[in-house]
Amino acid sequence: MVRRKKILVAQGGGPTTVINQSLIGLIEEAYKDEADVIGSYNGVNGIINSNFISLKKLSKIQRKLISNTPSSFLGSTRDKPDKSYCEEIFKVLQYKKIEKFFYIGGNDSSDSLRIISETANKMKYKLQCVHIPKTIDNDLVLNDHTPGYGSAAKFVACAFAGINLDVKSLPGIYVGVVMGRHAGFLTASASLLKKRNDDGPHLIYLPEINFDLNIFLGDVNATYKRFGRCVIAVSEGIKDKNNKLIANYLNKSLDKDAHGNIQLSGISSVGDFLVNNIKKKLKVKRVRSDTFGYLQRSFLGCNSEIDEKEAKNLGKKAYSYSEKNNYSFSVSMVERKNFNQKYSVSIGINKLSDVAAKTKLMPKNFINSKENHVTNKFINYATPLIGKKIPNFVTSF
Amino acid sequence: MVRRKKILVAQGGGPTTVINQSLIGLIEEAYKDEADVIGSYNGVNGIINSNFISLKKLSKIQRKLISNTPSSFLGSTRDKPDKSYCEEIFKVLQYKKIEKFFYIGGNDSSDSLRIISETANKMKYKLQCVHIPKTIDNDLVLNDHTPGYGSAAKFVACAFAGINLDVKSLPGIYVGVVMGRHAGFLTASASLLKKRNDDGPHLIYLPEINFDLNIFLGDVNATYKRFGRCVIAVSEGIKDKNNKLIANYLNKSLDKDAHGNIQLSGISSVGDFLVNNIKKKLKVKRVRSDTFGYLQRSFLGCNSEIDEKEAKNLGKKAYSYSEKNNYSFSVSMVERKNFNQKYSVSIGINKLSDVAAKTKLMPKNFINSKENHVTNKFINYATPLIGKKIPNFVTSF
Repeated sequence: MVRRKKILVAQGGGPTTVINQSLIGLIEEAYKDEADVIGSYNGVNGIINSNFISLKKLSKIQRKLISNTPSSFLGSTRDKPDKSYCEEIFKVLQYKKIEKFFYIGGNDSSDSLRIISETANKMKYKLQCVHIPKTIDNDLVLNDHTPGYGSAAKFVACAFAGINLDVKSLPGIYVGVVMGRHAGFLTASASLLKKRNDDGPHLIYLPEINFDLNIFLGDVNATYKRFGRCVIAVSEGIKDKNNKLIANYLNKSLDKDAHGNIQLSGISSVGDFLVNNIKKKLKVKRVRSDTFGYLQRSFLGCNSEIDEKEAKNLGKKAYSYSEKNNYSFSVSMVERKNFNQKYSVSIGINKLSDVAAKTKLMPKNFINSKENHVTNKFINYATPLIGKKIPNFVTSF
Repeated sequence: MVRRKKILVAQGGGPTTVINQSLIGLIEEAYKDEADVIGSYNGVNGIINSNFISLKKLSKIQRKLISNTPSSFLGSTRDKPDKSYCEEIFKVLQYKKIEKFFYIGGNDSSDSLRIISETANKMKYKLQCVHIPKTIDNDLVLNDHTPGYGSAAKFVACAFAGINLDVKSLPGIYVGVVMGRHAGFLTASASLLKKRNDDGPHLIYLPEINFDLNIFLGDVNATYKRFGRCVIAVSEGIKDKNNKLIANYLNKSLDKDAHGNIQLSGISSVGDFLVNNIKKKLKVKRVRSDTFGYLQRSFLGCNSEIDEKEAKNLGKKAYSYSEKNNYSFSVSMVERKNFNQKYSVSIGINKLSDVAAKTKLMPKNFINSKENHVTNKFINYATPLIGKKIPNFVTSF
């Protein structure tokens, strides 16, 4: 009897709409190898609580359905393993004779994986840890972009395409608050379906740039005077020059997760603060704000077909590279050198410690000189990622 | 030389994503009749300000593009004409020899049209006024449903399908605040992609039912204890037994438009109030809220194909019925008697005064006996309206 390889897979952090594509890509590649695939529910939390599910007999129809399903099919967690948590993990992995552990997640999850991998080495336990990236924030270093970003960017771009026309029909000032704690890639994607100079978003404020209320009000006032309306995209994570979150201006206490991240979504303090100031200082009557919240990362039916394909491929490649190498790694889409060529990306691998807990920010050449919008370079970078299945529409004749 | 009929068209009130389908349906029917079609920018406001555009030479490609475009292509207005405003309108219409005025809008717009039509009669000016319904609120009496509702309902259903899975992966309590000032149809549509009993939305609170905070907290607590999570859909327009808006509990002064409607979207007071109370009274840590806001009525690329078709057809029928009759009317989709049969609706007409400024509410048999969810009758009523182009997904195996 041939001994089957035992592999474990889990999903961590905030969900995306294509994270299950990576799960199924991995599973299908492992099936070819006749590996025994086990899933842990709720990320690393499911390991210490022995909350497992056998994934070795998913039918083709089941795999297709799971691929299409937004959010983490195996559940998720914000748990951040420390030394004792890791020791618990090994007891279980050792007992279950797990050889490879695939963790689909963002920079916090890759850091959890790094800790697990390093502790495994110290304990002389032979465990290959493989990180498969996902994050709508697109903030993983050494990655051209991350699975999940393209679909979330499409959602944000489609939202602003509609909002631009809505505000054109009933003029006023609109502030759309977009996810992205430290990196502005998702907020910047608000620009991707802008057609003309007078279309919104007219202004974009990113967490990479110190936010100054007076400069902001000046920008808004000038735009409103010029076009009779103003559509603004703002990151939930904008901070002032003293590194204080604008979200903190109205809320004195904000929740934190186990990774020390302040809860920015599910609250509306950034939008409320900006709307109040615009109304008070600029004396404009019709001022509105929406905080896009969880819709950006879980909305059903707005996926980028490119993102779906890449997420699945990264799951597949994670498995095949794990067979070619016996060490731990993070799989990635290699950074493109040029954004003007026909779009294609190649797949590579990085050391876990080179990716873990690091944050990639918007490069300077993606941000305009006034620091209130994006450059064409960003547009060329991000446009292919949202795919082509977007209705043709007009903003003017 | 044949004299061409001169017809005027305008769009009023909050936009929808299919309101331009009705515009193009009307224009294409008028083209067959070789009528001279003029558009007024920003609804009735464009008439008194002589802000017109000739629409008689739109190419097939232009018509297709405009159909696909969300929000009002001709702009909109919240202006509510009074007697002197109407007299201004007639001066212009008389000067421009307009014979038919088509106004695409909701119950406020139909009331504007009723006033214009009655004043025309008094002034012995021969003017046929035709109302073409649109509203995501779905609150027009004598209409089975209104164009715009199906697509907005699809957006809300797709949002909750994703949110359900998001909250399943990272458990907690989630409050999604949905548009709908007086009528709960849009909030109720949160249920349309719910698959199993343990899927969200677990609770739905409609403006038709007096909101009681203690009953709400009891419902949420029971659901959270049962499922380990709770997804809630709440209308922005919920009121307490004294008819006070819950949105008013936190905000002392809310903006009003010319129709006396309080601004409920673009603010987050309902969600904030409920989240604060859940956190304080139920001691649950992970409690989030999103207010869906303007995305519901303008998002690009989430249209119901049924809604698109019906909106266009209503535009066409508005013109053809205006030829068959010489009086003013409101075109409508006739109320179905039975929701179990294969879906189809017929088109009819109503007197303007029978539709204008009246509000249709959710019938009692669409709301469950506990008054915290919808019935199967509502599901059967609304499911066909969101169309069939929704990805297959799973919530559990």
